[in-house]
Amino acid sequence: MNYRMIGYVLGRIFLIEAALMLLPLAVAVIYGEDTVSSFLFPIVLLAALGVLLGLRVPRDKAIFAREGFVVVALAWVLMSLFGAMPFTLAGEIPSYVDAFFETVSGFTTTGASILVDVEAMSKGLLFWRSFTHWVGGMGVLVFAMAVLPMSDGRAMHLMRAEVPGPSVGKLSSKLRDTAKILYSIYLVMTVVEVILLVAGGMPLYDALINSFGSAGTGGFSVKALSIGAYNSPYAEIVIGIFMMLFGINFNLYYLLLLRRFKEALLSEELLTYLGIIAASTIAISFNILHTCSNFAQALRYAFFQVSSVITTTGFATADFNLWPTFSKTILVTLMFFGACAGSTGGGIKIARLVIMFKASLQDLQRMCHPHAITTVRFENKPLEEKTVRGVHVFLTIYIMVFAVSVLLVSLDQLDLVTNFTAVASCLNNIGPGLEIVGPMGNFSSFSDPVKLVLSFDMLAGRLEIFPMLVLFSPSVWLGKRRTSNHHQFRQGRRI
Amino acid sequence: MNYRMIGYVLGRIFLIEAALMLLPLAVAVIYGEDTVSSFLFPIVLLAALGVLLGLRVPRDKAIFAREGFVVVALAWVLMSLFGAMPFTLAGEIPSYVDAFFETVSGFTTTGASILVDVEAMSKGLLFWRSFTHWVGGMGVLVFAMAVLPMSDGRAMHLMRAEVPGPSVGKLSSKLRDTAKILYSIYLVMTVVEVILLVAGGMPLYDALINSFGSAGTGGFSVKALSIGAYNSPYAEIVIGIFMMLFGINFNLYYLLLLRRFKEALLSEELLTYLGIIAASTIAISFNILHTCSNFAQALRYAFFQVSSVITTTGFATADFNLWPTFSKTILVTLMFFGACAGSTGGGIKIARLVIMFKASLQDLQRMCHPHAITTVRFENKPLEEKTVRGVHVFLTIYIMVFAVSVLLVSLDQLDLVTNFTAVASCLNNIGPGLEIVGPMGNFSSFSDPVKLVLSFDMLAGRLEIFPMLVLFSPSVWLGKRRTSNHHQFRQGRRI
Repeated sequence: MNYRMIGYVLGRIFLIEAALMLLPLAVAVIYGEDTVSSFLFPIVLLAALGVLLGLRVPRDKAIFAREGFVVVALAWVLMSLFGAMPFTLAGEIPSYVDAFFETVSGFTTTGASILVDVEAMSKGLLFWRSFTHWVGGMGVLVFAMAVLPMSDGRAMHLMRAEVPGPSVGKLSSKLRDTAKILYSIYLVMTVVEVILLVAGGMPLYDALINSFGSAGTGGFSVKALSIGAYNSPYAEIVIGIFMMLFGINFNLYYLLLLRRFKEALLSEELLTYLGIIAASTIAISFNILHTCSNFAQALRYAFFQVSSVITTTGFATADFNLWPTFSKTILVTLMFFGACAGSTGGGIKIARLVIMFKASLQDLQRMCHPHAITTVRFENKPLEEKTVRGVHVFLTIYIMVFAVSVLLVSLDQLDLVTNFTAVASCLNNIGPGLEIVGPMGNFSSFSDPVKLVLSFDMLAGRLEIFPMLVLFSPSVWLGKRRTSNHHQFRQGRRI
Repeated sequence: MNYRMIGYVLGRIFLIEAALMLLPLAVAVIYGEDTVSSFLFPIVLLAALGVLLGLRVPRDKAIFAREGFVVVALAWVLMSLFGAMPFTLAGEIPSYVDAFFETVSGFTTTGASILVDVEAMSKGLLFWRSFTHWVGGMGVLVFAMAVLPMSDGRAMHLMRAEVPGPSVGKLSSKLRDTAKILYSIYLVMTVVEVILLVAGGMPLYDALINSFGSAGTGGFSVKALSIGAYNSPYAEIVIGIFMMLFGINFNLYYLLLLRRFKEALLSEELLTYLGIIAASTIAISFNILHTCSNFAQALRYAFFQVSSVITTTGFATADFNLWPTFSKTILVTLMFFGACAGSTGGGIKIARLVIMFKASLQDLQRMCHPHAITTVRFENKPLEEKTVRGVHVFLTIYIMVFAVSVLLVSLDQLDLVTNFTAVASCLNNIGPGLEIVGPMGNFSSFSDPVKLVLSFDMLAGRLEIFPMLVLFSPSVWLGKRRTSNHHQFRQGRRI
């Protein structure tokens, strides 16, 4: 393990976080709030650590898969630890565990909150809280790649560990350009959303917050009633559509820019994603019709909630905890689906679902017709056995993490639905669950150890599990000798 | 598709069912009940159909994988349709859908009941209801193989479709002998349980019923309070241990008979199964300690319930619906685990879980050490990629069936926990769930369409999903041409 290089990259990340924190500091200054020093301390600390770690450039700059996982996982945990400081220093979230939970929830774009009264918080801190969504949405290491010089070979392992989905598409021959393109598209789309919301009469501050929330598919809001508080069908529709757009693979937007329209619009994942949204919206609309004044309202509520849940944003316009069981079941199912690979959304990802579905169909056919030759294609390419296995193993580990988490969370003795949906919501980076953690509830009822379990789940969900498992795997930390002695390792190990 | 051969095999199955029904008829006669004619009608019908279908022996006796699935699935559906008749004819379960649900629940060894007052039923019908558990436990086609002449090549496809687990072990060079050995072990173990229960003071009738329930890992009881009604720690311990024993792969018992002790006792699946039972029992004992008079009682309650749920039997001695959330979460998790492959238990099966776990570990290692060569071994044999893929696809399809079922069941507007655990309970052939379908509740609250969905789930669970999917797959029924023209099919199909 190349510890020196890990420290060096982390130093760069600290510098970036210090720079990013200047923005909420400016907001606090503009609103004349007394939280300025709460921001200054972590900024100075991060900058000092960043400079210190960057003093000696390591000679061996090698980053292998293992280092990639460790750097990414460590970066996210440390960023959250530092990012939580302003909340506790300002005394607005007195418990540091709570502040950590809230910051993890921000960076991982989950949007689960322990705040009982969000409207009592100061503007600067709420801005930071929502800004973490925007940073976490596209990924801080992708950001680092866009702004810092780094060779392709090294960066690939970082990118692979941070960008969601079964495979990473290189948009450009250079990874650095890919990162720049991704962040530019992301920035432009966010700005367009802000403009549209302000044009509809939303104050600029709120428009920024809600755009951060939808762009990162995070879901933190500055209102207790979430988006429902604005009572504005226009804002609901704009945010509903933008959540859906941010749940689409960003590579497709790049294809659109290159005028490769057919390729972009006929993406199997995109069509499946849109189909699921349409079907779920219609089913829920009919199911909740009797609680609404007319079908248009039902459709609006249903679309907003479906878009919010499938993209794992978690904004709410209605308390779906009170909806009929059928609608709730659809929403809980969508919690697991998640958005498209390569988007800012969480969950299992539509691409994985399509691959699993096709692999299953293939096996069913093989079973009935053992002599037939079947080829499975996905996005116009034959699906490799390796990819299918990767998706299957992801699902297995995902289920294991899920089951163990529910078991640990159940030690708090809350009800089964709360526990189940709390874990589903954190592991899929959604935000609200049902019952106590429903859209109008919060996560403050859990004990500190359970909040840490849920924080782990949020990080595991955002980084697609493997980096977090690697971080906590003793063999990785004790395995220094193996890297230097591949030969010994090649002899094969038995599990 | 060889329709004639399918009809021929079904005819044999009908004759066997007619013969089996003579037993409850005798019970009804002994107790002087007026349900005799309710048994006679289906017996005569089954015998007539059986003779009719057996009149012309088909020239082409070929049974391929596809026919195997169809025969097994059809046999189980038809057996349940005929087996349900006595309940409705006697007027004790007036609705035929309810009677069908109850019979499917019996044959599939689920033990989920729509009966509100089981103690009001007549003895003959209750005997038949529990006897279906015993027949379904080891499988009616395995039984047919043991008693009817059938060539190995044909029978293998039937056996594979009916015996649970990722692979079928041939105990003897002849499949017919394998079936005989399996049924002999099964019969002897059942008789031993009956003797032990009678020795402990249980009436013979009750001992038979409870032994049928534990041998098939079914769980139908003749008491509203299930095994708790006997208030006998002795009976609880005997039944608890026998449930556990019937959840073990029967091949291991055969190995014991052959004095290959080491091979049998060091089976990885067995050790994992026992380890999970021990760990769960201890965890639950401590968790429910405050509700019990002493630790021994807590241990007894916990062991009985763990054994009952992991083997998917579903007997109860305590109302675990009232236990703390942590214990309930363990039990719900065990509902999915299930017993060992090749046992009479349901669920995903421990062998599959071990394989999935090992495959995941292997991939995690590969990810961190791309150059290392890792071999996964299971039960002292290298695990083939094909087996791993089969297990993964099983899990995927299992989850899909599960999700669609929960969605359909939720149309009845009962609560989420009831719906979720009702489907979990039916698909894993357990019996009770939580809330409305808890151990002291029943399935009568569901509508008829939902009862049919749950019946499908029970059959899908018992036959490990594929046969039921094949039965409802249009391509199988329209695919006659393909069998005669393999060439056309070999050109490959795209999914």
